[in-house]
Amino acid sequence: MDKQKLYVIKIGGSLIDNEKDLMNFLEEFASIKALKILVHGGGKLASDLAEKLNIPQQMTDGRRVTDQKTLDVVTMVYAGKVNKNIVAKLQNLNCNAIGFSGADGNLIKAEKRVVSNIDYGFVGDVVSKSVNVDLLQKFLELQLVPVFSAITHNKKGNLLNTNADSVASVLAQALSQNYDVELLYCFDKDGVLENVENPDSLVKNLNSKKYEQLRSENKLNEGILPKLKNAFTAKENNVNKVVLLNETKLQNQLNHQNEGTEIDI
Amino acid sequence: MDKQKLYVIKIGGSLIDNEKDLMNFLEEFASIKALKILVHGGGKLASDLAEKLNIPQQMTDGRRVTDQKTLDVVTMVYAGKVNKNIVAKLQNLNCNAIGFSGADGNLIKAEKRVVSNIDYGFVGDVVSKSVNVDLLQKFLELQLVPVFSAITHNKKGNLLNTNADSVASVLAQALSQNYDVELLYCFDKDGVLENVENPDSLVKNLNSKKYEQLRSENKLNEGILPKLKNAFTAKENNVNKVVLLNETKLQNQLNHQNEGTEIDI
Repeated sequence: MDKQKLYVIKIGGSLIDNEKDLMNFLEEFASIKALKILVHGGGKLASDLAEKLNIPQQMTDGRRVTDQKTLDVVTMVYAGKVNKNIVAKLQNLNCNAIGFSGADGNLIKAEKRVVSNIDYGFVGDVVSKSVNVDLLQKFLELQLVPVFSAITHNKKGNLLNTNADSVASVLAQALSQNYDVELLYCFDKDGVLENVENPDSLVKNLNSKKYEQLRSENKLNEGILPKLKNAFTAKENNVNKVVLLNETKLQNQLNHQNEGTEIDI
Repeated sequence: MDKQKLYVIKIGGSLIDNEKDLMNFLEEFASIKALKILVHGGGKLASDLAEKLNIPQQMTDGRRVTDQKTLDVVTMVYAGKVNKNIVAKLQNLNCNAIGFSGADGNLIKAEKRVVSNIDYGFVGDVVSKSVNVDLLQKFLELQLVPVFSAITHNKKGNLLNTNADSVASVLAQALSQNYDVELLYCFDKDGVLENVENPDSLVKNLNSKKYEQLRSENKLNEGILPKLKNAFTAKENNVNKVVLLNETKLQNQLNHQNEGTEIDI
């Protein structure tokens, strides 16, 4: 029997920080007839709250070093304010959204990152076997629409701050066992650009050879590298389709207009 | 066929504010073999955070007047920090907890309180038909242990700040259709005391006549009145057993030692 189609869609800070853009996106998301899962980042809200509370923030290689106070901040913002507001808005759009952290139902169990040169604190790393596929499948069968913040746990009582791109990638990988998964990374660019100043330089199909070429030519900015790493890992692990696209063009993508950059291997 | 036993257990601020007491309680809660649901308040954390963020707080008749900024604070604290930490701790105790606000899966739909003399802002009121019993039952059948914060929604896109005692009461009422429900209000007193200074003055059984008598004699402090109102409403609406008891004595209650004050009608 053909596998059922499932979209795993990741949205980031640029949408979360803009109420109107977020609403437009959620309307398009709610209209998807196929099974779907949303994964969201947190935007600037966590940094803003940390600043107001005088909790110094340290970013290393694009990751937030997460001490106990910072963990409280990201849990409040990502799993609290952002997650529950997205769920309430989707419910208003008659989309039966249900908000999760990885701790809920033990849906995503992470490993606390091992201290090497840097102690990232309460930062979690996830792989595809981190995902509780059986339970997620039951929720999808109940026509629920999971909405994940990137807060996970280690099943030893600790919450962990996890990269939202990685969460989307491992969910897509794990669910590819049972579903025909399309993983969409929605962000504020049209996709991977050969020249970040020139929107016409969009790379429609990116394979690993082209990726290595662009990287060696320093044409990829730091922000997109972890996203691409997660995108390739997904594609290499049986996710049917992986695309990076502009968050304002979800509808076109759903209508098979092939927006953005599709990952090939 | 006999209905299955289900505990609906409410805990409040005195536990949330004390890490060690909370852990002791959660260990006892996790050990309950029967079906169970936990409902938690938020303790002083929300007021503390509001103070740090310079958001003035106004309490009227024991309810927090909830403007948009205050709604963000209680959502972050109750649905974020408190809820997800309880879930992570229960997961560590091999209890398959899953944290919810009322918006998640449309589990509890509230009505925004109508403005009369006072505009409470984003405060929600709930009744037993607010509860999505079908979905909750499916979760219980999956051996999940729902953990509710008292944030609900109006299905029009707004989150609402709701009284946790009321949430516990309406959950117990609604689920009494399908389960043999025991509703336990755990707090920092031994139960209803005729003389609040004297722990030996515990009222073992409180019926509405005795309740009216104690109230007319001004023997009930303001804090316990809303709890008792919710407790009587539950008992009057088919909840099998309703008890107010000390949060340190859950284990005794589970062993049928009849702790606290049982509500009669």
